[in-house]
Amino acid sequence: MPNNASPHYSPDYCHSVQIYYEDTDFSGVVYHPNFLKYFERAREHVIGAGVLSRLWHEQQLGFAVYKTEMLCLEGVEFADLVQVRTRFYFESKYRTVWLQEIWREGGKKAAVSATIEMVCMDSQRRLCPMPEALLHSLSQDFIAPPGL
Amino acid sequence: MPNNASPHYSPDYCHSVQIYYEDTDFSGVVYHPNFLKYFERAREHVIGAGVLSRLWHEQQLGFAVYKTEMLCLEGVEFADLVQVRTRFYFESKYRTVWLQEIWREGGKKAAVSATIEMVCMDSQRRLCPMPEALLHSLSQDFIAPPGL
Amino acid sequence: MPNNASPHYSPDYCHSVQIYYEDTDFSGVVYHPNFLKYFERAREHVIGAGVLSRLWHEQQLGFAVYKTEMLCLEGVEFADLVQVRTRFYFESKYRTVWLQEIWREGGKKAAVSATIEMVCMDSQRRLCPMPEALLHSLSQDFIAPPGL
Amino acid sequence: MPNNASPHYSPDYCHSVQIYYEDTDFSGVVYHPNFLKYFERAREHVIGAGVLSRLWHEQQLGFAVYKTEMLCLEGVEFADLVQVRTRFYFESKYRTVWLQEIWREGGKKAAVSATIEMVCMDSQRRLCPMPEALLHSLSQDFIAPPGL
Repeated sequence: MPNNASPHYSPDYCHSVQIYYEDTDFSGVVYHPNFLKYFERAREHVIGAGVLSRLWHEQQLGFAVYKTEMLCLEGVEFADLVQVRTRFYFESKYRTVWLQEIWREGGKKAAVSATIEMVCMDSQRRLCPMPEALLHSLSQDFIAPPGL
Repeated sequence: MPNNASPHYSPDYCHSVQIYYEDTDFSGVVYHPNFLKYFERAREHVIGAGVLSRLWHEQQLGFAVYKTEMLCLEGVEFADLVQVRTRFYFESKYRTVWLQEIWREGGKKAAVSATIEMVCMDSQRRLCPMPEALLHSLSQDFIAPPGL
Repeated sequence: MPNNASPHYSPDYCHSVQIYYEDTDFSGVVYHPNFLKYFERAREHVIGAGVLSRLWHEQQLGFAVYKTEMLCLEGVEFADLVQVRTRFYFESKYRTVWLQEIWREGGKKAAVSATIEMVCMDSQRRLCPMPEALLHSLSQDFIAPPGL
Repeated sequence: MPNNASPHYSPDYCHSVQIYYEDTDFSGVVYHPNFLKYFERAREHVIGAGVLSRLWHEQQLGFAVYKTEMLCLEGVEFADLVQVRTRFYFESKYRTVWLQEIWREGGKKAAVSATIEMVCMDSQRRLCPMPEALLHSLSQDFIAPPGL
Protein backbone atom coordinates (compact mmCIF):
# COMPACT_ATOMS: atom_id res chain seq x y z
CA MET A 1 0.00 0.00 0.00
CA PRO A 2 2.77 2.58 0.44
CA ASN A 3 4.54 4.58 -2.25
CA ASN A 4 2.18 4.24 -5.17
CA ALA A 5 2.05 6.97 -7.78
CA SER A 6 -1.70 7.07 -7.14
CA PRO A 7 -2.06 6.21 -3.48
CA HIS A 8 -4.94 4.35 -1.94
CA TYR A 9 -6.88 6.65 0.32
CA SER A 10 -8.69 6.12 3.57
CA PRO A 11 -12.44 6.71 3.51
CA ASP A 12 -13.58 10.22 4.47
CA TYR A 13 -13.96 10.63 8.21
CA CYS A 14 -16.05 13.34 9.82
CA HIS A 15 -15.56 14.76 13.32
CA SER A 16 -17.60 17.56 14.92
CA VAL A 17 -16.03 20.39 16.90
CA GLN A 18 -18.03 22.85 18.99
CA ILE A 19 -16.43 26.31 19.11
CA TYR A 20 -16.16 27.57 22.69
CA TYR A 21 -14.90 30.80 24.30
CA GLU A 22 -11.44 29.20 24.60
CA ASP A 23 -11.21 28.87 20.82
CA THR A 24 -11.67 32.52 19.92
CA ASP A 25 -9.57 35.64 20.34
CA PHE A 26 -10.53 39.29 20.73
CA SER A 27 -10.94 39.71 16.97
CA GLY A 28 -14.10 37.61 17.36
CA VAL A 29 -13.11 34.48 15.43
CA VAL A 30 -11.15 31.30 16.08
CA TYR A 31 -7.46 31.91 16.81
CA HIS A 32 -5.71 30.25 13.86
CA PRO A 33 -3.35 27.80 15.68
CA ASN A 34 -6.45 26.18 17.14
CA PHE A 35 -7.32 24.80 13.70
CA LEU A 36 -4.24 22.58 13.99
CA LYS A 37 -5.70 21.33 17.29
CA TYR A 38 -8.99 20.37 15.64
CA PHE A 39 -7.15 18.57 12.87
CA GLU A 40 -5.20 16.62 15.46
CA ARG A 41 -8.31 15.72 17.45
CA ALA A 42 -9.83 14.37 14.24
CA ARG A 43 -6.72 12.28 13.49
CA GLU A 44 -6.80 10.89 17.02
CA HIS A 45 -10.37 9.73 16.44
CA VAL A 46 -9.38 8.07 13.15
CA ILE A 47 -6.42 6.21 14.66
CA GLY A 48 -8.06 5.77 18.06
CA ALA A 49 -6.90 7.51 21.25
CA GLY A 50 -6.55 4.14 22.99
CA VAL A 51 -4.42 2.82 20.12
CA LEU A 52 -2.15 5.87 20.35
CA SER A 53 -1.90 5.57 24.12
CA ARG A 54 -0.89 1.88 23.98
CA LEU A 55 1.54 2.54 21.12
CA TRP A 56 3.29 5.12 23.31
CA HIS A 57 3.25 3.27 26.61
CA GLU A 58 3.97 -0.21 25.28
CA GLN A 59 6.22 0.45 22.28
CA GLN A 60 7.42 4.03 22.91
CA LEU A 61 6.20 5.00 19.46
CA GLY A 62 4.23 8.05 18.45
CA PHE A 63 3.29 10.19 15.47
CA ALA A 64 4.98 13.56 15.16
CA VAL A 65 3.83 16.31 12.85
CA TYR A 66 6.62 16.91 10.36
CA LYS A 67 5.01 19.34 7.93
CA THR A 68 1.81 21.37 7.78
CA GLU A 69 0.28 23.53 5.10
CA MET A 70 -2.88 25.37 6.03
CA LEU A 71 -5.13 27.79 4.18
CA CYS A 72 -7.57 29.89 6.28
CA LEU A 73 -10.27 31.05 3.89
CA GLU A 74 -13.08 32.02 6.21
CA GLY A 75 -13.40 33.00 9.87
CA VAL A 76 -15.02 30.54 12.26
CA GLU A 77 -17.09 31.99 15.09
CA PHE A 78 -18.07 31.32 18.67
CA ALA A 79 -20.99 28.85 18.94
CA ASP A 80 -20.29 27.39 15.49
CA LEU A 81 -20.46 23.62 15.25
CA VAL A 82 -17.94 22.75 12.55
CA GLN A 83 -17.18 19.50 10.77
CA VAL A 84 -13.60 18.33 10.33
CA ARG A 85 -13.34 16.13 7.24
CA THR A 86 -10.32 13.89 7.09
CA ARG A 87 -8.76 11.38 4.75
CA PHE A 88 -5.21 10.13 4.59
CA TYR A 89 -2.79 7.84 2.81
CA PHE A 90 0.51 6.16 3.55
CA GLU A 91 3.42 7.71 1.74
CA SER A 92 5.78 5.11 3.18
CA LYS A 93 6.05 2.88 6.25
CA TYR A 94 7.30 5.92 8.10
CA ARG A 95 4.99 8.61 6.90
CA THR A 96 1.28 9.39 6.58
CA VAL A 97 -0.21 12.33 4.70
CA TRP A 98 -3.51 13.80 5.93
CA LEU A 99 -5.89 15.92 3.88
CA GLN A 100 -8.15 17.76 6.26
CA GLU A 101 -10.80 20.44 6.00
CA ILE A 102 -13.02 22.42 8.34
CA TRP A 103 -16.56 23.11 7.18
CA ARG A 104 -19.02 25.51 8.75
CA GLU A 105 -22.70 24.64 8.78
CA GLY A 106 -24.21 25.48 5.41
CA GLY A 107 -20.80 26.37 3.97
CA LYS A 108 -20.31 26.04 0.22
CA LYS A 109 -16.60 25.46 0.53
CA ALA A 110 -14.18 24.57 3.30
CA ALA A 111 -13.42 27.41 5.75
CA VAL A 112 -9.95 25.97 6.40
CA SER A 113 -7.99 23.30 4.54
CA ALA A 114 -4.71 21.63 5.35
CA THR A 115 -2.22 18.98 4.32
CA ILE A 116 -0.36 17.50 7.27
CA GLU A 117 2.49 15.00 7.18
CA MET A 118 3.09 12.78 10.19
CA VAL A 119 6.08 10.55 10.82
CA CYS A 120 6.39 7.64 13.22
CA MET A 121 9.06 8.25 15.89
CA ASP A 122 10.29 6.66 19.08
CA SER A 123 10.67 8.55 22.36
CA GLN A 124 14.17 9.72 21.31
CA ARG A 125 12.58 11.16 18.15
CA ARG A 126 14.27 8.66 15.84
CA LEU A 127 12.33 7.82 12.70
CA CYS A 128 10.76 4.32 12.98
CA PRO A 129 8.58 2.25 10.68
CA MET A 130 4.99 1.96 11.81
CA PRO A 131 4.25 -1.46 13.33
CA GLU A 132 2.82 -3.86 10.72
CA ALA A 133 -0.30 -4.49 12.79
CA LEU A 134 -1.07 -0.78 12.89
CA LEU A 135 -0.40 -0.31 9.17
CA HIS A 136 -2.71 -3.21 8.48
CA SER A 137 -5.57 -2.13 10.74
CA LEU A 138 -5.44 1.47 9.53
CA SER A 139 -5.45 0.58 5.85
CA GLN A 140 -7.93 -2.26 5.70
CA ASP A 141 -10.81 -0.14 4.43
CA PHE A 142 -8.71 1.93 2.05
CA ILE A 143 -10.09 2.89 -1.32
CA ALA A 144 -8.28 2.44 -4.61
CA PRO A 145 -7.92 5.59 -6.70
CA PRO A 146 -10.36 5.79 -9.60
CA GLY A 147 -9.14 3.92 -12.69
CA LEU A 148 -7.17 1.22 -10.87
CA MET B 1 -35.77 31.98 42.94
CA PRO B 2 -32.68 33.96 43.90
CA ASN B 3 -31.27 34.58 47.36
CA ASN B 4 -32.86 31.79 49.36
CA ALA B 5 -31.09 30.41 52.39
CA SER B 6 -31.49 26.98 50.78
CA PRO B 7 -31.25 27.65 47.07
CA HIS B 8 -33.10 25.78 44.40
CA TYR B 9 -30.65 23.86 42.28
CA SER B 10 -30.55 23.04 38.63
CA PRO B 11 -30.72 19.36 37.72
CA ASP B 12 -27.37 17.58 37.31
CA TYR B 13 -25.99 17.97 33.80
CA CYS B 14 -23.37 15.67 32.33
CA HIS B 15 -20.93 16.56 29.55
CA SER B 16 -18.22 14.27 28.11
CA VAL B 17 -14.70 15.47 27.36
CA GLN B 18 -12.19 13.42 25.40
CA ILE B 19 -8.60 14.04 26.54
CA TYR B 20 -6.32 14.79 23.59
CA TYR B 21 -2.58 15.49 23.21
CA GLU B 22 -3.34 19.22 23.55
CA ASP B 23 -4.69 18.66 27.06
CA THR B 24 -1.61 17.06 28.59
CA ASP B 25 1.84 18.30 29.53
CA PHE B 26 5.19 16.53 29.72
CA SER B 27 4.41 15.19 33.21
CA GLY B 28 1.96 12.87 31.43
CA VAL B 29 -1.35 14.19 32.79
CA VAL B 30 -3.77 17.00 32.02
CA TYR B 31 -2.29 20.47 32.56
CA HIS B 32 -4.36 21.88 35.44
CA PRO B 33 -5.68 25.15 33.86
CA ASN B 34 -7.37 22.99 31.24
CA PHE B 35 -9.82 21.75 33.86
CA LEU B 36 -11.24 25.28 33.97
CA LYS B 37 -11.73 24.99 30.21
CA TYR B 38 -13.73 21.78 30.56
CA PHE B 39 -15.88 23.35 33.26
CA GLU B 40 -16.59 26.28 30.97
CA ARG B 41 -17.44 24.04 28.02
CA ALA B 42 -19.93 22.24 30.25
CA ARG B 43 -21.50 25.52 31.37
CA GLU B 44 -21.80 26.62 27.75
CA HIS B 45 -23.73 23.44 26.99
CA VAL B 46 -26.05 24.05 29.95
CA ILE B 47 -26.80 27.66 28.97
CA GLY B 48 -26.53 27.01 25.24
CA ALA B 49 -23.76 28.38 23.01
CA GLY B 50 -26.35 29.99 20.72
CA VAL B 51 -28.02 31.68 23.70
CA LEU B 52 -24.66 33.06 24.84
CA SER B 53 -23.79 34.24 21.35
CA ARG B 54 -27.11 36.11 20.91
CA LEU B 55 -26.85 37.57 24.43
CA TRP B 56 -23.46 39.04 23.50
CA HIS B 57 -24.25 40.23 19.99
CA GLU B 58 -27.77 41.52 20.64
CA GLN B 59 -27.59 42.76 24.23
CA GLN B 60 -23.82 43.09 24.81
CA LEU B 61 -24.14 40.91 27.89
CA GLY B 62 -21.95 38.04 28.96
CA PHE B 63 -20.98 35.93 31.95
CA ALA B 64 -17.59 36.56 33.50
CA VAL B 65 -15.90 34.23 35.96
CA TYR B 66 -15.52 36.11 39.22
CA LYS B 67 -14.26 33.42 41.56
CA THR B 68 -13.00 29.85 41.21
CA GLU B 69 -12.06 27.25 43.78
CA MET B 70 -10.67 24.02 42.41
CA LEU B 71 -9.37 20.86 44.03
CA CYS B 72 -7.27 18.50 41.87
CA LEU B 73 -7.39 15.13 43.56
CA GLU B 74 -6.34 12.76 40.80
CA GLY B 75 -4.41 13.02 37.55
CA VAL B 76 -6.33 12.70 34.29
CA GLU B 77 -4.54 11.02 31.39
CA PHE B 78 -4.33 11.10 27.61
CA ALA B 79 -7.11 9.06 25.96
CA ASP B 80 -9.35 9.32 29.04
CA LEU B 81 -12.99 10.09 28.35
CA VAL B 82 -14.11 12.06 31.39
CA GLN B 83 -17.53 13.22 32.53
CA VAL B 84 -18.07 16.78 33.70
CA ARG B 85 -20.99 16.88 36.16
CA THR B 86 -22.55 20.28 36.65
CA ARG B 87 -25.29 21.87 38.70
CA PHE B 88 -25.82 25.49 39.59
CA TYR B 89 -28.03 27.95 41.43
CA PHE B 90 -28.75 31.67 41.32
CA GLU B 91 -27.26 33.58 44.19
CA SER B 92 -28.84 36.78 42.92
CA LYS B 93 -30.00 38.30 39.64
CA TYR B 94 -26.36 39.11 38.99
CA ARG B 95 -24.63 35.97 40.04
CA THR B 96 -24.70 32.21 39.45
CA VAL B 97 -22.78 29.63 41.44
CA TRP B 98 -21.67 26.44 39.69
CA LEU B 99 -20.72 23.18 41.38
CA GLN B 100 -18.75 21.12 38.92
CA GLU B 101 -16.81 17.88 39.02
CA ILE B 102 -14.71 15.80 36.65
CA TRP B 103 -15.07 12.05 36.88
CA ARG B 104 -12.82 9.46 35.24
CA GLU B 105 -14.34 6.26 33.94
CA GLY B 106 -14.83 3.85 36.83
CA GLY B 107 -13.74 6.49 39.35
CA LYS B 108 -15.06 6.17 42.93
CA LYS B 109 -14.80 9.87 43.57
CA ALA B 110 -14.37 13.02 41.48
CA ALA B 111 -10.85 13.54 40.07
CA VAL B 112 -11.37 17.31 40.15
CA SER B 113 -14.02 19.42 41.85
CA ALA B 114 -14.73 23.13 41.66
CA THR B 115 -17.03 25.92 42.73
CA ILE B 116 -17.20 28.71 40.19
CA GLU B 117 -19.03 32.03 40.52
CA MET B 118 -20.13 33.85 37.39
CA VAL B 119 -21.46 37.38 37.16
CA CYS B 120 -23.42 38.99 34.37
CA MET B 121 -21.59 41.93 32.77
CA ASP B 122 -21.91 44.23 29.80
CA SER B 123 -19.11 44.84 27.31
CA GLN B 124 -17.64 47.57 29.57
CA ARG B 125 -17.52 44.99 32.36
CA ARG B 126 -20.21 46.70 34.43
CA LEU B 127 -22.28 44.38 36.59
CA CYS B 128 -25.77 43.88 35.09
CA PRO B 129 -28.81 41.86 36.11
CA MET B 130 -29.45 38.82 33.95
CA PRO B 131 -32.34 39.38 31.54
CA GLU B 132 -35.62 38.06 33.00
CA ALA B 133 -36.20 35.77 30.03
CA LEU B 134 -32.84 34.10 30.56
CA LEU B 135 -33.37 33.76 34.32
CA HIS B 136 -36.72 32.20 33.63
CA SER B 137 -35.59 29.76 30.95
CA LEU B 138 -32.54 28.66 32.93
CA SER B 139 -34.45 28.04 36.15
CA GLN B 140 -37.62 26.40 34.92
CA ASP B 141 -36.55 22.87 35.75
CA PHE B 142 -34.90 23.76 39.05
CA ILE B 143 -35.27 21.45 41.99
CA ALA B 144 -36.33 22.54 45.46
CA PRO B 145 -33.96 21.61 48.27
CA PRO B 146 -35.12 18.61 50.32
CA GLY B 147 -37.59 19.58 53.04
CA LEU B 148 -39.21 22.52 51.24
CA MET C 1 11.22 26.06 58.40
CA PRO C 2 8.01 24.19 57.68
CA ASN C 3 4.87 24.15 59.76
CA ASN C 4 5.16 27.30 61.85
CA ALA C 5 2.03 29.05 63.03
CA SER C 6 3.43 32.19 61.39
CA PRO C 7 5.31 30.91 58.36
CA HIS C 8 8.46 32.41 56.96
CA TYR C 9 7.77 33.83 53.53
CA SER C 10 9.81 34.04 50.38
CA PRO C 11 10.65 37.53 49.16
CA ASP C 12 8.24 39.01 46.61
CA TYR C 13 9.07 37.99 43.07
CA CYS C 14 7.89 39.87 40.00
CA HIS C 15 7.42 38.41 36.51
CA SER C 16 6.15 40.29 33.43
CA VAL C 17 3.62 38.81 31.02
CA GLN C 18 2.78 40.36 27.65
CA ILE C 19 -0.84 39.76 26.63
CA TYR C 20 -1.05 38.41 23.07
CA TYR C 21 -3.93 37.46 20.74
CA GLU C 22 -3.72 33.89 22.07
CA ASP C 23 -4.58 35.08 25.58
CA THR C 24 -7.88 36.75 24.80
CA ASP C 25 -11.32 35.50 23.79
CA PHE C 26 -14.09 37.11 21.74
CA SER C 27 -15.36 39.05 24.77
CA GLY C 28 -12.21 41.17 24.37
CA VAL C 29 -10.35 40.28 27.56
CA VAL C 30 -8.08 37.49 28.79
CA TYR C 31 -9.78 34.09 28.94
CA HIS C 32 -9.79 33.28 32.66
CA PRO C 33 -7.99 29.88 32.70
CA ASN C 34 -4.99 31.65 31.21
CA PHE C 35 -4.40 33.43 34.51
CA LEU C 36 -3.50 30.05 35.99
CA LYS C 37 -0.92 29.73 33.19
CA TYR C 38 0.68 33.06 34.09
CA PHE C 39 0.81 32.07 37.75
CA GLU C 40 2.55 28.85 36.80
CA ARG C 41 5.04 30.61 34.53
CA ALA C 42 5.91 32.89 37.45
CA ARG C 43 6.40 29.92 39.80
CA GLU C 44 8.65 28.25 37.23
CA HIS C 45 10.83 31.36 37.19
CA VAL C 46 11.01 31.36 41.00
CA ILE C 47 11.99 27.69 41.25
CA GLY C 48 13.94 27.70 37.98
CA ALA C 49 12.88 25.84 34.84
CA GLY C 50 16.23 24.01 34.72
CA VAL C 51 15.80 22.93 38.36
CA LEU C 52 12.31 21.58 37.59
CA SER C 53 13.55 19.80 34.48
CA ARG C 54 16.41 18.06 36.32
CA LEU C 55 14.12 17.18 39.26
CA TRP C 56 11.80 15.41 36.83
CA HIS C 57 14.37 13.69 34.64
CA GLU C 58 16.82 12.71 37.38
CA GLN C 59 14.56 12.07 40.38
CA GLN C 60 11.12 11.65 38.74
CA LEU C 61 9.74 14.33 41.05
CA GLY C 62 7.49 17.22 40.18
CA PHE C 63 5.10 19.75 41.69
CA ALA C 64 1.40 19.21 41.10
CA VAL C 65 -1.27 21.81 41.72
CA TYR C 66 -3.53 20.47 44.44
CA LYS C 67 -5.76 23.45 45.16
CA THR C 68 -6.41 26.84 43.59
CA GLU C 69 -8.53 29.78 44.68
CA MET C 70 -8.71 32.66 42.24
CA LEU C 71 -10.53 35.98 42.28
CA CYS C 72 -10.89 37.83 38.95
CA LEU C 73 -11.58 41.45 39.82
CA GLU C 74 -10.76 43.27 36.61
CA GLY C 75 -10.48 42.37 32.93
CA VAL C 76 -7.04 42.23 31.35
CA GLU C 77 -6.77 43.32 27.72
CA PHE C 78 -4.80 42.60 24.58
CA ALA C 79 -1.47 44.48 24.49
CA ASP C 80 -1.39 44.85 28.29
CA LEU C 81 1.94 44.17 29.94
CA VAL C 82 1.02 42.80 33.35
CA GLN C 83 3.12 42.02 36.42
CA VAL C 84 2.71 38.73 38.25
CA ARG C 85 3.69 39.18 41.91
CA THR C 86 4.51 36.00 43.76
CA ARG C 87 5.51 34.92 47.23
CA PHE C 88 5.25 31.53 48.85
CA TYR C 89 5.88 29.53 52.00
CA PHE C 90 6.35 25.90 52.95
CA GLU C 91 3.39 24.40 54.73
CA SER C 92 5.23 21.12 55.15
CA LYS C 93 7.97 19.13 53.42
CA TYR C 94 5.32 18.05 50.95
CA ARG C 95 3.47 21.21 50.28
CA THR C 96 4.07 24.83 49.22
CA VAL C 97 1.48 27.61 49.30
CA TRP C 98 1.75 30.41 46.74
CA LEU C 99 0.18 33.84 47.01
CA GLN C 100 0.05 35.36 43.57
CA GLU C 101 -1.41 38.47 42.00
CA ILE C 102 -1.68 40.01 38.54
CA TRP C 103 -1.31 43.78 38.31
CA ARG C 104 -2.08 45.92 35.29
CA GLU C 105 0.07 48.96 34.59
CA GLY C 106 -1.04 51.84 36.80
CA GLY C 107 -3.51 49.60 38.65
CA LYS C 108 -4.45 50.56 42.21
CA LYS C 109 -5.25 47.00 43.19
CA ALA C 110 -4.57 43.55 41.79
CA ALA C 111 -6.67 42.61 38.74
CA VAL C 112 -6.50 38.93 39.72
CA SER C 113 -5.39 37.26 42.95
CA ALA C 114 -4.90 33.62 43.81
CA THR C 115 -3.78 31.18 46.44
CA ILE C 116 -2.32 28.01 44.97
CA GLU C 117 -1.18 24.89 46.82
CA MET C 118 1.40 22.65 45.23
CA VAL C 119 2.45 19.20 46.41
CA CYS C 120 5.57 17.26 45.53
CA MET C 121 4.81 14.00 43.70
CA ASP C 122 6.65 11.26 41.87
CA SER C 123 5.75 10.11 38.36
CA GLN C 124 3.12 7.70 39.79
CA ARG C 125 1.56 10.70 41.55
CA ARG C 126 2.50 9.51 45.03
CA LEU C 127 3.09 12.26 47.56
CA CYS C 128 6.83 12.68 48.26
CA PRO C 129 8.84 15.00 50.50
CA MET C 130 10.74 17.67 48.60
CA PRO C 131 14.46 16.86 48.42
CA GLU C 132 16.38 18.57 51.25
CA ALA C 133 18.68 20.38 48.81
CA LEU C 134 15.71 21.93 47.04
CA LEU C 135 14.00 22.91 50.31
CA HIS C 136 17.24 24.51 51.40
CA SER C 137 17.96 26.42 48.20
CA LEU C 138 14.39 27.67 47.87
CA SER C 139 14.15 28.91 51.46
CA GLN C 140 17.55 30.48 52.00
CA ASP C 141 16.39 34.05 51.49
CA PHE C 142 13.09 33.64 53.36
CA ILE C 143 11.80 36.41 55.55
CA ALA C 144 10.63 35.95 59.13
CA PRO C 145 7.12 37.20 59.88
CA PRO C 146 7.03 40.54 61.71
CA GLY C 147 7.37 40.17 65.48
CA LEU C 148 9.59 37.09 65.48
CA MET D 1 7.80 49.05 -2.04
CA PRO D 2 5.27 46.29 -2.63
CA ASN D 3 5.16 43.83 -5.50
CA ASN D 4 8.80 43.78 -6.61
CA ALA D 5 10.19 40.67 -8.22
CA SER D 6 12.94 40.82 -5.61
CA PRO D 7 11.24 42.21 -2.54
CA HIS D 8 12.85 44.44 0.03
CA TYR D 9 13.06 42.64 3.33
CA SER D 10 12.72 43.78 6.88
CA PRO D 11 15.80 43.37 9.06
CA ASP D 12 16.01 40.14 11.07
CA TYR D 13 14.17 40.38 14.36
CA CYS D 14 14.83 38.06 17.29
CA HIS D 15 12.35 37.23 20.07
CA SER D 16 12.98 34.84 22.99
CA VAL D 17 10.41 32.30 24.16
CA GLN D 18 10.75 30.34 27.40
CA ILE D 19 9.19 26.86 27.16
CA TYR D 20 6.86 26.19 30.09
CA TYR D 21 4.74 23.21 31.20
CA GLU D 22 1.82 24.65 29.21
CA ASP D 23 3.80 24.34 25.97
CA THR D 24 4.50 20.62 26.14
CA ASP D 25 2.37 17.50 25.78
CA PHE D 26 2.75 14.01 27.25
CA SER D 27 5.21 13.01 24.49
CA GLY D 28 7.67 15.31 26.27
CA VAL D 29 8.12 18.02 23.65
CA VAL D 30 6.30 21.16 22.53
CA TYR D 31 2.83 20.50 21.11
CA HIS D 32 3.15 21.55 17.46
CA PRO D 33 0.31 24.15 17.18
CA ASN D 34 2.12 26.14 19.86
CA PHE D 35 4.86 26.97 17.35
CA LEU D 36 2.29 29.05 15.47
CA LYS D 37 1.67 30.91 18.75
CA TYR D 38 5.36 31.75 19.14
CA PHE D 39 5.50 32.97 15.56
CA GLU D 40 2.56 35.22 16.20
CA ARG D 41 4.02 36.58 19.44
CA ALA D 42 7.16 37.47 17.50
CA ARG D 43 5.15 39.23 14.78
CA GLU D 44 3.27 41.20 17.43
CA HIS D 45 6.59 42.42 18.81
CA VAL D 46 7.73 43.47 15.32
CA ILE D 47 4.55 45.40 14.55
CA GLY D 48 3.98 46.48 18.15
CA ALA D 49 1.12 45.23 20.34
CA GLY D 50 0.01 48.83 20.99
CA VAL D 51 -0.03 49.53 17.24
CA LEU D 52 -2.17 46.45 16.64
CA SER D 53 -4.52 47.36 19.48
CA ARG D 54 -5.06 50.91 18.19
CA LEU D 55 -5.47 49.66 14.61
CA TRP D 56 -8.28 47.40 15.80
CA HIS D 57 -10.04 49.76 18.19
CA GLU D 58 -9.70 52.94 16.11
CA GLN D 59 -9.85 51.67 12.52
CA GLN D 60 -11.39 48.19 12.95
CA LEU D 61 -8.46 46.72 11.02
CA GLY D 62 -6.42 43.65 11.84
CA PHE D 63 -4.09 41.10 10.32
CA ALA D 64 -5.46 37.65 9.67
CA VAL D 65 -3.36 34.61 8.91
CA TYR D 66 -4.25 33.45 5.42
CA LYS D 67 -1.68 30.74 4.79
CA THR D 68 0.91 28.89 6.83
CA GLU D 69 3.58 26.40 5.87
CA MET D 70 5.55 24.91 8.74
CA LEU D 71 8.32 22.34 8.93
CA CYS D 72 9.02 20.76 12.34
CA LEU D 73 12.54 19.35 12.15
CA GLU D 74 13.46 18.93 15.79
CA GLY D 75 11.61 18.58 19.09
CA VAL D 76 11.69 21.48 21.53
CA GLU D 77 11.72 20.62 25.23
CA PHE D 78 10.50 21.93 28.56
CA ALA D 79 12.88 24.55 30.04
CA ASP D 80 14.35 25.40 26.61
CA LEU D 81 14.82 29.07 25.89
CA VAL D 82 14.34 29.35 22.13
CA GLN D 83 14.90 32.22 19.72
CA VAL D 84 12.26 33.11 17.15
CA ARG D 85 13.94 34.76 14.14
CA THR D 86 11.65 36.78 11.93
CA ARG D 87 11.84 38.80 8.75
CA PHE D 88 9.08 39.81 6.38
CA TYR D 89 8.23 41.65 3.20
CA PHE D 90 5.17 43.25 1.63
CA GLU D 91 3.73 41.27 -1.23
CA SER D 92 1.11 43.96 -1.84
CA LYS D 93 -0.72 46.63 0.12
CA TYR D 94 -2.95 43.85 1.39
CA ARG D 95 -0.52 41.16 2.19
CA THR D 96 2.67 40.54 4.18
CA VAL D 97 4.80 37.40 4.00
CA TRP D 98 6.73 36.33 7.09
CA LEU D 99 9.74 34.02 7.16
CA GLN D 100 10.14 32.72 10.67
CA GLU D 101 12.32 30.17 12.41
CA ILE D 102 12.71 28.74 15.88
CA TRP D 103 16.25 28.03 17.06
CA ARG D 104 17.24 26.05 20.13
CA GLU D 105 20.29 27.12 22.12
CA GLY D 106 23.41 25.83 20.40
CA GLY D 107 21.38 24.53 17.45
CA LYS D 108 23.14 24.19 14.08
CA LYS D 109 19.93 24.63 12.13
CA ALA D 110 16.41 25.84 12.85
CA ALA D 111 14.25 23.41 14.86
CA VAL D 112 11.11 24.76 13.15
CA SER D 113 10.71 26.97 10.10
CA ALA D 114 7.63 28.58 8.61
CA THR D 115 6.31 30.88 5.91
CA ILE D 116 3.19 32.73 7.00
CA GLU D 117 1.02 35.04 4.90
CA MET D 118 -1.04 37.69 6.61
CA VAL D 119 -3.74 39.84 5.06
CA CYS D 120 -5.22 43.08 6.32
CA MET D 121 -8.96 42.80 7.07
CA ASP D 122 -11.70 44.81 8.67
CA SER D 123 -13.97 43.46 11.39
CA GLN D 124 -16.31 41.95 8.75
CA ARG D 125 -13.28 40.11 7.35
CA ARG D 126 -13.23 42.11 4.12
CA LEU D 127 -9.80 42.51 2.57
CA CYS D 128 -8.48 46.08 3.10
CA PRO D 129 -5.28 47.85 2.16
CA MET D 130 -2.96 48.51 5.06
CA PRO D 131 -3.06 52.16 6.13
CA GLU D 132 -0.27 54.16 4.45
CA ALA D 133 1.14 55.30 7.80
CA LEU D 134 1.53 51.71 8.94
CA LEU D 135 3.08 50.61 5.63
CA HIS D 136 5.51 53.47 5.91
CA SER D 137 6.49 52.93 9.53
CA LEU D 138 6.89 49.17 9.09
CA SER D 139 9.06 49.45 5.99
CA GLN D 140 11.33 52.34 6.82
CA ASP D 141 14.31 50.20 7.77
CA PHE D 142 13.83 47.65 5.00
CA ILE D 143 16.82 46.22 3.23
CA ALA D 144 17.22 46.04 -0.54
CA PRO D 145 17.92 42.58 -1.92
CA PRO D 146 21.57 42.01 -2.86
CA GLY D 147 22.38 43.33 -6.35
CA LEU D 148 19.98 46.27 -6.35
